[in-house]
Amino acid sequence: MMKTLGVLGGMGPAATLAFLARVQALTPATGDEDHIRVIADINPQVPNRHSQPEAAGRTLGEMAARLRDAGAEVLAMPCNTAHAHAGAIRAAGLPFIDMVVETARVAKAGGARRVGVLATPGGEALYATALEAEGVEMVRLSAADRDRFMAVVFGVKAGDVGAAQRSAMRDLAAALVSAGAEGVIGGCTEAPLLLDGDDVAVPLTDSAEVLARACVGMCL
Amino acid sequence: MMKTLGVLGGMGPAATLAFLARVQALTPATGDEDHIRVIADINPQVPNRHSQPEAAGRTLGEMAARLRDAGAEVLAMPCNTAHAHAGAIRAAGLPFIDMVVETARVAKAGGARRVGVLATPGGEALYATALEAEGVEMVRLSAADRDRFMAVVFGVKAGDVGAAQRSAMRDLAAALVSAGAEGVIGGCTEAPLLLDGDDVAVPLTDSAEVLARACVGMCL
Repeated sequence: MMKTLGVLGGMGPAATLAFLARVQALTPATGDEDHIRVIADINPQVPNRHSQPEAAGRTLGEMAARLRDAGAEVLAMPCNTAHAHAGAIRAAGLPFIDMVVETARVAKAGGARRVGVLATPGGEALYATALEAEGVEMVRLSAADRDRFMAVVFGVKAGDVGAAQRSAMRDLAAALVSAGAEGVIGGCTEAPLLLDGDDVAVPLTDSAEVLARACVGMCL
Repeated sequence: MMKTLGVLGGMGPAATLAFLARVQALTPATGDEDHIRVIADINPQVPNRHSQPEAAGRTLGEMAARLRDAGAEVLAMPCNTAHAHAGAIRAAGLPFIDMVVETARVAKAGGARRVGVLATPGGEALYATALEAEGVEMVRLSAADRDRFMAVVFGVKAGDVGAAQRSAMRDLAAALVSAGAEGVIGGCTEAPLLLDGDDVAVPLTDSAEVLARACVGMCL
């Protein structure tokens, strides 16, 4: 029996659509009716996850409850950083697939002992915990590269997915490899809009792909 | 004050994502928060609009009411054929942007006196009424071309947007032009997945584009 997936989206909007397209691509289908029902709240006005964490948690909790009331049976959120508010989302009482925990597991299963993480500061903090739980060492971006990463992410949110942006994201991944990473996690849902597995010298674990796969596994 | 858009989607799922991407592309934005909030019920299990019209109407009415209860303030549905059930959707009491009526208006405004329509049989019947209201003559696909059109649409729903499919859709548009159409309406949300304006010798009015533009106009 298929389950209806509720998606807390909009962080950002383009990343949410890329995630939903991945869910569809990963679903074996010969017609409309083979696909999972998805109720997506694409809310680009979720308060800033860095500067207004309490307000963000409140809004995400409300979104989760509304998705439940609209018929969702499983929840997912294609934004790593916002997983700091997983507790507020779980309060709605539905199973919530934790993107960060799942991604750390998949990266570990790939065999890397040291994994580099492309993430916002908030996302990186979550991956530090999740990777530690897996017994995997985390390789962080340098402070200067972190600033570059955030500039690239906000460029994507402004609609720029051009060649300079792609090149910058590739360089950031390469810096993690130079620092000893045997695997790289695309730990921000904007990352896969700019970076493919072919762009990185070591295995790339894309958090959006991992979450999409987990959603299909749970809902189909 | 921005309005929250509720989308009755899933007919088909890929067409819904293409529509949502268009809404985003048509929104002037320099960051997440400039985008419209969209609650999309991507429901690929809406009963068949041709063979089970009563059940389809009931389901669409329920989806509209749930979107309203989840916070939607304006409703839209990126599926022309399902507009046969506009009444059931309007019963939720929210403004519903009628894709067929809007598209007929835009095609008329383009100056064509005879407009060809790429649509399912159900969609074509709705366009016949909408174009007549605009005083525009409709050019229909032949029975054989209609069968070809439906085969192409179901190919898209099965995931095939390849070159042969594109070529077939281009030929169908050309057949309408040969039959006297001075403009062509892409009156099925699967059509733009295969057909661009450059593929047609006369102006192409894409119903998904028209609806996306109307949604941005109404919600922004």
